[in-house]
Amino acid sequence: MAHKHGHGRERIQFANTEDKQEFTKYPTKAGRRSLSRSISQSSTDSYSSAASYTDSSDDETSPRDKAQVNTHGSSDFCVKNIKQAEFGRREIEIAEQDMSALISLRKRAQGEKPLAGAKIVGCTHITAQTAVLIETLVALGAQCRWTACNIYSTQNEVAAALAETGVPVFAWKGESEDDFWWCIDRCVNTEGWQANMILDDGGDLTHWVYKKYPSVFKKVRGIVEESVTGVHRLYQLSKAGKLCVPAMNVNDSVTKQKFDNLYCCRESILDGLKRTTDIMFGGKQVVVCGYGEVGKGCCTALKALGAIVCITEIDPICALQACMDGFRVVKLSEVIRQMDVVITCTGNKNVVTREQLDRMKNGCIVCNMGHSNTEIDVASLRSPELTWERVRSQVDHIIWPDGKRVVLLAEGRLLNLSCSTVPTFVLSITATTQALALIELFNAPEGRYKQDVYLLPKKMDEYVASLHLPNFDAHLTELSDEQAKYMGLNKNGPFKPNYYRY
Amino acid sequence: MAHKHGHGRERIQFANTEDKQEFTKYPTKAGRRSLSRSISQSSTDSYSSAASYTDSSDDETSPRDKAQVNTHGSSDFCVKNIKQAEFGRREIEIAEQDMSALISLRKRAQGEKPLAGAKIVGCTHITAQTAVLIETLVALGAQCRWTACNIYSTQNEVAAALAETGVPVFAWKGESEDDFWWCIDRCVNTEGWQANMILDDGGDLTHWVYKKYPSVFKKVRGIVEESVTGVHRLYQLSKAGKLCVPAMNVNDSVTKQKFDNLYCCRESILDGLKRTTDIMFGGKQVVVCGYGEVGKGCCTALKALGAIVCITEIDPICALQACMDGFRVVKLSEVIRQMDVVITCTGNKNVVTREQLDRMKNGCIVCNMGHSNTEIDVASLRSPELTWERVRSQVDHIIWPDGKRVVLLAEGRLLNLSCSTVPTFVLSITATTQALALIELFNAPEGRYKQDVYLLPKKMDEYVASLHLPNFDAHLTELSDEQAKYMGLNKNGPFKPNYYRY
Amino acid sequence: MAHKHGHGRERIQFANTEDKQEFTKYPTKAGRRSLSRSISQSSTDSYSSAASYTDSSDDETSPRDKAQVNTHGSSDFCVKNIKQAEFGRREIEIAEQDMSALISLRKRAQGEKPLAGAKIVGCTHITAQTAVLIETLVALGAQCRWTACNIYSTQNEVAAALAETGVPVFAWKGESEDDFWWCIDRCVNTEGWQANMILDDGGDLTHWVYKKYPSVFKKVRGIVEESVTGVHRLYQLSKAGKLCVPAMNVNDSVTKQKFDNLYCCRESILDGLKRTTDIMFGGKQVVVCGYGEVGKGCCTALKALGAIVCITEIDPICALQACMDGFRVVKLSEVIRQMDVVITCTGNKNVVTREQLDRMKNGCIVCNMGHSNTEIDVASLRSPELTWERVRSQVDHIIWPDGKRVVLLAEGRLLNLSCSTVPTFVLSITATTQALALIELFNAPEGRYKQDVYLLPKKMDEYVASLHLPNFDAHLTELSDEQAKYMGLNKNGPFKPNYYRY
Amino acid sequence: MAHKHGHGRERIQFANTEDKQEFTKYPTKAGRRSLSRSISQSSTDSYSSAASYTDSSDDETSPRDKAQVNTHGSSDFCVKNIKQAEFGRREIEIAEQDMSALISLRKRAQGEKPLAGAKIVGCTHITAQTAVLIETLVALGAQCRWTACNIYSTQNEVAAALAETGVPVFAWKGESEDDFWWCIDRCVNTEGWQANMILDDGGDLTHWVYKKYPSVFKKVRGIVEESVTGVHRLYQLSKAGKLCVPAMNVNDSVTKQKFDNLYCCRESILDGLKRTTDIMFGGKQVVVCGYGEVGKGCCTALKALGAIVCITEIDPICALQACMDGFRVVKLSEVIRQMDVVITCTGNKNVVTREQLDRMKNGCIVCNMGHSNTEIDVASLRSPELTWERVRSQVDHIIWPDGKRVVLLAEGRLLNLSCSTVPTFVLSITATTQALALIELFNAPEGRYKQDVYLLPKKMDEYVASLHLPNFDAHLTELSDEQAKYMGLNKNGPFKPNYYRY
Repeated sequence: MAHKHGHGRERIQFANTEDKQEFTKYPTKAGRRSLSRSISQSSTDSYSSAASYTDSSDDETSPRDKAQVNTHGSSDFCVKNIKQAEFGRREIEIAEQDMSALISLRKRAQGEKPLAGAKIVGCTHITAQTAVLIETLVALGAQCRWTACNIYSTQNEVAAALAETGVPVFAWKGESEDDFWWCIDRCVNTEGWQANMILDDGGDLTHWVYKKYPSVFKKVRGIVEESVTGVHRLYQLSKAGKLCVPAMNVNDSVTKQKFDNLYCCRESILDGLKRTTDIMFGGKQVVVCGYGEVGKGCCTALKALGAIVCITEIDPICALQACMDGFRVVKLSEVIRQMDVVITCTGNKNVVTREQLDRMKNGCIVCNMGHSNTEIDVASLRSPELTWERVRSQVDHIIWPDGKRVVLLAEGRLLNLSCSTVPTFVLSITATTQALALIELFNAPEGRYKQDVYLLPKKMDEYVASLHLPNFDAHLTELSDEQAKYMGLNKNGPFKPNYYRY
Repeated sequence: MAHKHGHGRERIQFANTEDKQEFTKYPTKAGRRSLSRSISQSSTDSYSSAASYTDSSDDETSPRDKAQVNTHGSSDFCVKNIKQAEFGRREIEIAEQDMSALISLRKRAQGEKPLAGAKIVGCTHITAQTAVLIETLVALGAQCRWTACNIYSTQNEVAAALAETGVPVFAWKGESEDDFWWCIDRCVNTEGWQANMILDDGGDLTHWVYKKYPSVFKKVRGIVEESVTGVHRLYQLSKAGKLCVPAMNVNDSVTKQKFDNLYCCRESILDGLKRTTDIMFGGKQVVVCGYGEVGKGCCTALKALGAIVCITEIDPICALQACMDGFRVVKLSEVIRQMDVVITCTGNKNVVTREQLDRMKNGCIVCNMGHSNTEIDVASLRSPELTWERVRSQVDHIIWPDGKRVVLLAEGRLLNLSCSTVPTFVLSITATTQALALIELFNAPEGRYKQDVYLLPKKMDEYVASLHLPNFDAHLTELSDEQAKYMGLNKNGPFKPNYYRY
Repeated sequence: MAHKHGHGRERIQFANTEDKQEFTKYPTKAGRRSLSRSISQSSTDSYSSAASYTDSSDDETSPRDKAQVNTHGSSDFCVKNIKQAEFGRREIEIAEQDMSALISLRKRAQGEKPLAGAKIVGCTHITAQTAVLIETLVALGAQCRWTACNIYSTQNEVAAALAETGVPVFAWKGESEDDFWWCIDRCVNTEGWQANMILDDGGDLTHWVYKKYPSVFKKVRGIVEESVTGVHRLYQLSKAGKLCVPAMNVNDSVTKQKFDNLYCCRESILDGLKRTTDIMFGGKQVVVCGYGEVGKGCCTALKALGAIVCITEIDPICALQACMDGFRVVKLSEVIRQMDVVITCTGNKNVVTREQLDRMKNGCIVCNMGHSNTEIDVASLRSPELTWERVRSQVDHIIWPDGKRVVLLAEGRLLNLSCSTVPTFVLSITATTQALALIELFNAPEGRYKQDVYLLPKKMDEYVASLHLPNFDAHLTELSDEQAKYMGLNKNGPFKPNYYRY
Repeated sequence: MAHKHGHGRERIQFANTEDKQEFTKYPTKAGRRSLSRSISQSSTDSYSSAASYTDSSDDETSPRDKAQVNTHGSSDFCVKNIKQAEFGRREIEIAEQDMSALISLRKRAQGEKPLAGAKIVGCTHITAQTAVLIETLVALGAQCRWTACNIYSTQNEVAAALAETGVPVFAWKGESEDDFWWCIDRCVNTEGWQANMILDDGGDLTHWVYKKYPSVFKKVRGIVEESVTGVHRLYQLSKAGKLCVPAMNVNDSVTKQKFDNLYCCRESILDGLKRTTDIMFGGKQVVVCGYGEVGKGCCTALKALGAIVCITEIDPICALQACMDGFRVVKLSEVIRQMDVVITCTGNKNVVTREQLDRMKNGCIVCNMGHSNTEIDVASLRSPELTWERVRSQVDHIIWPDGKRVVLLAEGRLLNLSCSTVPTFVLSITATTQALALIELFNAPEGRYKQDVYLLPKKMDEYVASLHLPNFDAHLTELSDEQAKYMGLNKNGPFKPNYYRY
């Protein structure tokens, strides 16, 4: 989910300044450095049942200091507690029920084992959903070693279940920064096994290999990267002429984008607001800043539930779309006094300024659905004349001297990650896209991909979609030969030109 | 909330059989004892912040055994801990912000003190919202004594805050059944003070006065009752010729009904489903049983978020409405195999049978938005061949021998009470209606009301609405004299005939 | 369509002043003479194909002066041209396809011939749709004589088709006023036949019988009246103690009301605006005056197509509904300068004043969906400083001295009647309601109905709805015995109390 | 309207076979001769008021044989009747009111006269709207000569008005094929004037210059083409290496596409169905074939008005979108028996086959919103066992031997062109796009454009949108310097990457 990353780690050592720059040109977020965080991280922040199963009162011994062996006698892993494997297995099985696309992919491709010979090193959130992905890759013939892309997001019991079945996993919830890199290193640097594929989420694994084991790239057939941050890093490498293998940007595939932004936010804006504030939507005056995919999703949902929504935009085309969709296009300062809710979805910074916060009416709710934590100038609220009162988890009342309260959600961080959950179905779209990208890169004939960053071929994008249609009992129509000829199309797709806007 | 009450009473002792019958003709529900429950009770079941403030780890001494005095030296109350008063005061102040209609009523009517001389004994849920109501009644001139209509729903800190300001309150969270009647008795039976108005929610207070202190009715000018159950009891009394004072049924006023059912359920169906299952609504096939106000609310919301909704109905007029609103009208058995979600909103029993549960597909979610816990035949699921697995609070997986799972929410009880919250704004509508009903009955000239059950006069219903319009910055148009004459209307309303359907 | 009738009668001679008063208390409208007009009259004003078939270039001889005989040798009728019968028959057949409820009623009731013995004199618009009604009544056993309730609305070919099959019809398009009463008289006053049922639309037939043949009422079992005007007259008669037979007000049945107002206007507002102005709805700022059923229909449709809609209201309950449905509630004067479209749906007068017209922006479209032609103060626009320019049928530009143009539709008369068509399905609802009312009144046991005005029993209202469900392939659910008992309902309905609001 | 063109040419003589092929690879359509038709052509087919003003009973003398002089003494034009100029002027003035973007462009750019020196030869529909475009070009400094791209679509009075003000126009309604090419020739081939810019709609003018006056291209700075057909021809020329000047494809600009397809069809599907059939949308079962922009527009509108809509798709991504938007995805044959309305929006052929037509239920309406007249296999219906009955303009009943009727609209041609109108606002988008493309090409520095086909630069696309925002009183937000820097954007746009999907 492109716009939804950020977490500040502070003491990462880079070998030299030049490299550091290379990786940090992309706008950084609050907190000194944000590494890549992907969507599933939300499970740690919020209400998902799965997260709650993770026993946080475990003993305090570091997993690095424990000797653990799975029931098959292997100790090539490092997780919090291998004994949680059974519990994690159930979590994986529940996730499988909503990820039938991957299960279906297993079945369709299993005969040919399209990943036979693939040695994949992966660095992602480690959740029940990624476990379904990993076990799909294994079922398709791959060998996998895995680590976590985030120090907080690992579901320990899932890691245990993976380790139990023989996947070398190095991850636990609450790693230190040092642990984080140690885990990555253990993943990559193992005797008698060398990765030939990389699946990354945020670019840290890729970075580590570049720094420590550049020779690994001689055998690597490709990198699959799913985060905005990681993709940005890859483009930087490519621009600098340093990308030495093909890379696939799965973040920007059509299907994934629509689900991460339009469809997902259409639901999570309601969920996030309701869980935190119990607000009644009917009749509320809402301004949504930004009418991109995220803004469109928010506006659709809120309007449907009886809110009176207006928008702000900088782009005249999006503004005209908003008009045609029935939303007044205003400047924020024109309406700020009347609004009950202010939502940012711009990807920009300081969209809501202190001056505007000063003019809001009592009880106005302010939240961010857009990008990191930059959109609302939260820093400006940390001033002595204002009182902060935490009234609930993720909900602060900022109190002005005259008693006016502004309700700030998630301290300006992403509402949908902090106060809502991501449906497994959305994660299934992403995981399936990743699996297909790995298959494509691993099996591509010599020369199809150069040392550059590619989008997933449209035909594969269509395939991801088609694998998810059975969930809706949706029946595709097939072109007849005559029709395919008339349209100048292959009957199996791709069905649209690359520039098609959907 | 009219359709949302249960009152399963098992061991309450009645003076004689006849009376018992009178009070129990109304269908009783399962569950050990829930008393009459009104909507705000949801705060105990769910995620509301307020509920979480109640310190459940308090000392174990029964409030009845504690000697407590407020800072004014009064001990005419019985609450968990008078020291929580300050905390409760803050809760009340927060609630006031969303109940500006009551605050406004205080201001408009305060000069004349329309309740001067009123001695009100009340039995409702004791929450921050009812505290705003009680303090409004006091501001309008009334003396009040209060007790809880539910043994679980009291917010202790709010009760403390009320007691601190001098309202004799007898209530705490977790009363025993004996405590429950003891509190009621303490409210009614006090030296030197005799109630002349009754505000009841569920009819228990009214019942108690009937049984124990029938002479009180000589001075009582009226009863205001807000629950379906209580209203039913009053109609029974009236039918039996035993109602000895006027009673006002505030449950069926237009404004309250629309908010309790249509508007509230439009939001709570989404909230209830999302919090419990993290379901993605887009593309889901949903059948809603019943297309009354609750069903209409559910269907509107789900359709707007991309679900494919069909309905079942027994009433051809409602069925035709569903057609015109774009929903297929089906029999449940025709579609049950394909559905992802089944929602009942009928007020009937056994709408979803075991046979239909047997035919559901794997993962189908079943829940009840209608009436009590009768709509889904949950009892039929408690059989040896099925396994129940509690996967989350309020969420059970019922597992068939072949591995099929049906996801049952809140064990078939009301989803909107169990797994969602009720916006304060909706409670404000109810509380304002109650206040106006008390004012009307207390001030009505002799003879306007007989010993019967009345609906709130339409003009008052309109007044409730008008008091809530400022929340939306809505500006009413006034009739000119000429227009009023042309329409044959009074400029101040009522504006519609009684049979108007809204 | 209930609220959409006017009848400005200026020169009709009444026997005495008292009676005249009785019939003219209802607000009269401008215009030379429009008689009571019902909805189907729209077919003459607008684009319906049927209307265009009527050969207006017929010879000029008055039908009253022509000797015509049908193929069965009868001359007991008076139509424009009996030779058009075949053409009319086809029109009737086409209408039958959308009026399957009546066809179904024919079949269900035919065995028992519930109207055997009924002698019905009818006065309605004479269109293909009423022909289907008349032929249904005949199929059910009735004898019918028929005349037109409007001098312009008769489809001559349909009248011919009816006459050909033996129904004595007296009606043609373009009757004079004298013709109008002559036709009514010929219907009622015939040797050897005396009506025992009256079906009226506007009250003129009823009036004529009262004036000329009061003795007829001795045998009449009841009057069925479908227009607002006619119903108003009946209530006046009843109030004055002069109603001497039972009358049924079919105008106010639930099903008919919903279709005439909410469902029909939801579509006709778009149709009426588009046909006259080719306006693009997306992004247009629209104010709808009045949020009753008509206003709700207009608002729903316009919002759905991307207009930005606000409303005005005098009734706080309706205003609050508008808030919850997502519409800003404003005073007209607050927004008039910004509006692209102004729509009146109030039933009131001078809702749009000259002062407001003066403040509208250039190009603003003004139209009336409400009541007669009173809502917009059109008279105020007929002043010397303003120029009227007819730019299209039903479209005038009113040009201010500074060049500003206001676009006035249908000269302020009802847009939906003047510039749109009424779907046959809506007419089917009305016709079925009329047929059932006739059956009910004709077969009611002595004493069920007194000399008063009644609403259609709810069970019959439900039956009308149920007869239309097959059009949508809608399948009703039936109550089990156990469920019916639990609900306290008869399995065959009625399913709701009379006060139910739908 | 991009996808809505046909050009069936049967007898046009080309100099050589090779060229002919080059121009006819694009699928040709049935019909005697329609030339390339652009959207505004709808005005001739349908109900637009403007069209009706054209006096079709004019004298029969060919304009080519008439000597006409305007009031300025010029005779360099050929129109039906120069005396209609005043009437045409009024039409133009009315159109100007909805084309404020062009008027605004005139004002903004007039000081600098960005088209000073431009000599534009144009071939488009000649309507009030194009007149506003032409006069804008003149106001910006251009000299223009104009001819019609369609033999039927010219509004004679508008042509007269243009001729009167001195624009050499050669066009009238009802040209013969010979007239058509004569007019084009008169436009291009005039002494002492040589075009340096071409504005074409369909490619006929461009073709003529290629064939007859190839030397003209030496001075031409560019071609602007707005139709699918013309654009296709240009790409063919480019591919064949024969394009000798830069060409701009304005058909595929974002803004134009959204309005031609999504926004316009959202309204015209309702309008087209209503005008032809008076259908009530509520409850109707509708299948929409194709869920591209046109299909999305149709589905949105129909669903909003209460129809029950399902879709067919060949593309899994679009199919998944349909699921998420709440539409069942089916194969046509699965649902065809139940449908009330079948709408094609695929751009494909034989989407509705005779076999499917055979299975439709009685009264089913079939129409085409997609491409030309290929989507419904209308030819298969012209067989002896079926009876065609024309029941209204553009409406045929096809009657099966068993009496079943299928309602075919516009004989399978485009419903939105045949039975609906195109709002002036949509035409304004197109015209503004054309004007900006001409300005861009005329002023582009040497080398910016090669001999190739270009899309309008995104910044200009954004400018078109921004010029239309004032119609909605929409207020754009401007980036601060700091924000622009953070986003890496120029404050004046473009604001999105080229691949952005909107």
